[in-house]
Amino acid sequence: MSYFDAASAAPLHPVARQALTASLDEGWADPARLYREGRRARMLLDAAREAAAEAVGCRADEVVFTSSGTRAVHVGVAGALAGRRRVGRHLIVSAVEHSSVLHSAEVFEAEGGSVGRVPVNRAGAVDPSSFAAALRPDTALACLQSANHEVGTVQPVAEVAGVCRAAGVPLLVDAAQTLGWEPVGGDWSLLTASAHKWGGPSGVGLLVVRKGVRFAAQGPVDERESGRAPGFENIPGIVAAVASLRAVRAEAAQEAVRLRELTERIRARVPELVPDVEVVGDAEHRLPGIVTFSCLYVDGEALLHELDRAGFSVSSGSSCTSSTLTPSHVLKAMGVLSEGNVRVSLPPGTAEADVERFLEVLPGAVAGVREKLGAPAAPATGTGPGELLVDSLGKRCPIPVIELAKVIGQVPVDGIVRVLSDDEAARLDIPAWCEMRGQQYIGEEPTEAGTAYLVRRVS
Amino acid sequence: MSYFDAASAAPLHPVARQALTASLDEGWADPARLYREGRRARMLLDAAREAAAEAVGCRADEVVFTSSGTRAVHVGVAGALAGRRRVGRHLIVSAVEHSSVLHSAEVFEAEGGSVGRVPVNRAGAVDPSSFAAALRPDTALACLQSANHEVGTVQPVAEVAGVCRAAGVPLLVDAAQTLGWEPVGGDWSLLTASAHKWGGPSGVGLLVVRKGVRFAAQGPVDERESGRAPGFENIPGIVAAVASLRAVRAEAAQEAVRLRELTERIRARVPELVPDVEVVGDAEHRLPGIVTFSCLYVDGEALLHELDRAGFSVSSGSSCTSSTLTPSHVLKAMGVLSEGNVRVSLPPGTAEADVERFLEVLPGAVAGVREKLGAPAAPATGTGPGELLVDSLGKRCPIPVIELAKVIGQVPVDGIVRVLSDDEAARLDIPAWCEMRGQQYIGEEPTEAGTAYLVRRVS
Repeated sequence: MSYFDAASAAPLHPVARQALTASLDEGWADPARLYREGRRARMLLDAAREAAAEAVGCRADEVVFTSSGTRAVHVGVAGALAGRRRVGRHLIVSAVEHSSVLHSAEVFEAEGGSVGRVPVNRAGAVDPSSFAAALRPDTALACLQSANHEVGTVQPVAEVAGVCRAAGVPLLVDAAQTLGWEPVGGDWSLLTASAHKWGGPSGVGLLVVRKGVRFAAQGPVDERESGRAPGFENIPGIVAAVASLRAVRAEAAQEAVRLRELTERIRARVPELVPDVEVVGDAEHRLPGIVTFSCLYVDGEALLHELDRAGFSVSSGSSCTSSTLTPSHVLKAMGVLSEGNVRVSLPPGTAEADVERFLEVLPGAVAGVREKLGAPAAPATGTGPGELLVDSLGKRCPIPVIELAKVIGQVPVDGIVRVLSDDEAARLDIPAWCEMRGQQYIGEEPTEAGTAYLVRRVS
Repeated sequence: MSYFDAASAAPLHPVARQALTASLDEGWADPARLYREGRRARMLLDAAREAAAEAVGCRADEVVFTSSGTRAVHVGVAGALAGRRRVGRHLIVSAVEHSSVLHSAEVFEAEGGSVGRVPVNRAGAVDPSSFAAALRPDTALACLQSANHEVGTVQPVAEVAGVCRAAGVPLLVDAAQTLGWEPVGGDWSLLTASAHKWGGPSGVGLLVVRKGVRFAAQGPVDERESGRAPGFENIPGIVAAVASLRAVRAEAAQEAVRLRELTERIRARVPELVPDVEVVGDAEHRLPGIVTFSCLYVDGEALLHELDRAGFSVSSGSSCTSSTLTPSHVLKAMGVLSEGNVRVSLPPGTAEADVERFLEVLPGAVAGVREKLGAPAAPATGTGPGELLVDSLGKRCPIPVIELAKVIGQVPVDGIVRVLSDDEAARLDIPAWCEMRGQQYIGEEPTEAGTAYLVRRVS
């Protein structure tokens, strides 16, 4: 088995396992108690906090341990917004943040706050000047991930932090995808991370609140974690999280070079090996271990199933692999193809041979799925009427695009195909198909039973 | 070392350790993913949920795993209150609930809700009729612990659940202290618990929401845990929590009898061995492993320190052992002495010899602390004026009571001693001293620099 989904959760690092089992005997008692067992637990917790602070590049008393990265984000966003309530009720997020940030923004909106969503370019990156333009006098907080979890694009955090600092607005950086590689640079105000992303145990998140940042923890709190994360501390988990962070950091520089070469190989070779593929995400400013591509005329769920059968665990941002039937908000914000989407995220230590085997297996897996779906082998040609209607109502991704591709050759050049679809993914994938195929996407029109997407044949 | 603070946190059960290390290899992946590692994690999680449901006596889909017992309470109270917002904004809690419940109530009050606090008797128990009297047409939720964590008194949960059910009000039961012993009986609606109280790992709590209970999770959520507990699941912790719950349950009936005999021995012998002691909590309806007593003229922190040096880890509800300088809200609600308070909570497996050694060590430890504080060996006698003023301003528990005890014999029978104190514990401990000593507590009067407590000499 080759597990290529480290961006979801990394397998437990051996150092994490060792630290966890070693601290089960000393770390179970209440660190707030003054007796021997409590003092021992407190010592473990204090040492972990010091080590975490060193890895982040902050003070120990700025570190709050939470029960997950998601919880760190929820607590951090709510606390920072409440701390600056008098300044205003405006929040800025990038359009490609992790769902935990976007869910926090939705709750804030429901409570009467306003949210600005900074768009990204086709590579998934924000532009610092767009962030600057989004800042308002009543902006209480801005959020930007250090790198994107779905496509690996690294964000210009230091520049955006500078822009925010100049405006007096705190920046919260979701560093879930990068803290295992390196500290976050720049003058940020809050930072969040999640241990299981770097090989630590699940059940441990990190929230850093810089001194001087106004912060008012929301909901009930107690005396634990500076009154910012209530509930009994999971000390063995915390110890294991921090020990593994130090361990992966020690290997990070070397491993980053190695993984980057492996993902570069996938980036370059997949489009050679598989027809009709779009590799997405920034080619230069990217995480070492993540590469994402989308395959035309492919059902993402079926492809994941084929790859799983072949021994590869990957994930997908295609709509057919989510419970909501909408494509990944990241791919949507980038405006790139979402059908047949595959994210490969290599854990540290991935063997070169496994990547090579993936490249061997992938073309057959894609071809098999395409064959089952009746994907067009070559563009159909012929002469038909100047306008054609394709009724794809009730059909899910990638069928509307397949049906479009099958008929485009039947209208003359400058002829128009109208695709009727009620699948949310079509809104993203039909324009993306046009971009890939050199056809012209005209736009959409509402109809009684769905949406009509208009495409003009150019070539 | 003898660890007698199981009510704070129980040492990790061997079965928990075994289950935790065994599931680290299979439980680290995202259970929402469809590939092999995700399916394995999902199977572990599903099996744990089934087993937890069986131990609680509920359906598997009623079980939500949270990151702590505190978090379970916070989520449970907020969700149940929001789910019945249309019914009204009134919450009922007992006066002796765990701080997580009381903190939730405070937040609810700050948001405009109203909170009824049901008093307890001198043994720490609520009266179902008082609960019934507190119910209002706009009551959205009632909360009652299954047993008290500081004095071990078992609450009449089944009766109160019946009262609430009759009124159509959901009852949330905080079962943190009892779930390891037995399921909670009665027709409750929500239940919370904490794994580290029964020997499971820290980082795992349990929230049960019965089908049909209106519930609206507050704050940002995601698709995990029925949308009620966001963030990546800590599956190894959950597996260990449930495995240890089953293990302690298998030993519970036998161990309960054994521990009850040991705590009964402490209840009976401490007052024989140590003068001026009040054993608190219900003598009959009580947890097997908890016994709590308070020692007149004793500084709780100093006593804990002496006991720690002698190898005993216990806790205390005395004000001098807390960061807030207020005595335990439980002892306060019961109206019992708080100074020199000691809670002994025996973990399963406690050796009889350790309890015997505790009974050997305790009298010397108490005597040593009393000697250092200059506690009155015998009531002073003499004849003085009909009224005496004791200025204890700036002095902390137990000094005001010691000074009162030293002078009470100096006024004639029917004479009055006024104790001036700005220590919060005096409000509880001076009346409690009067009760223990057969003197008459008249009441308090505000003064410029603190409060005057008036005591009439009776004997």
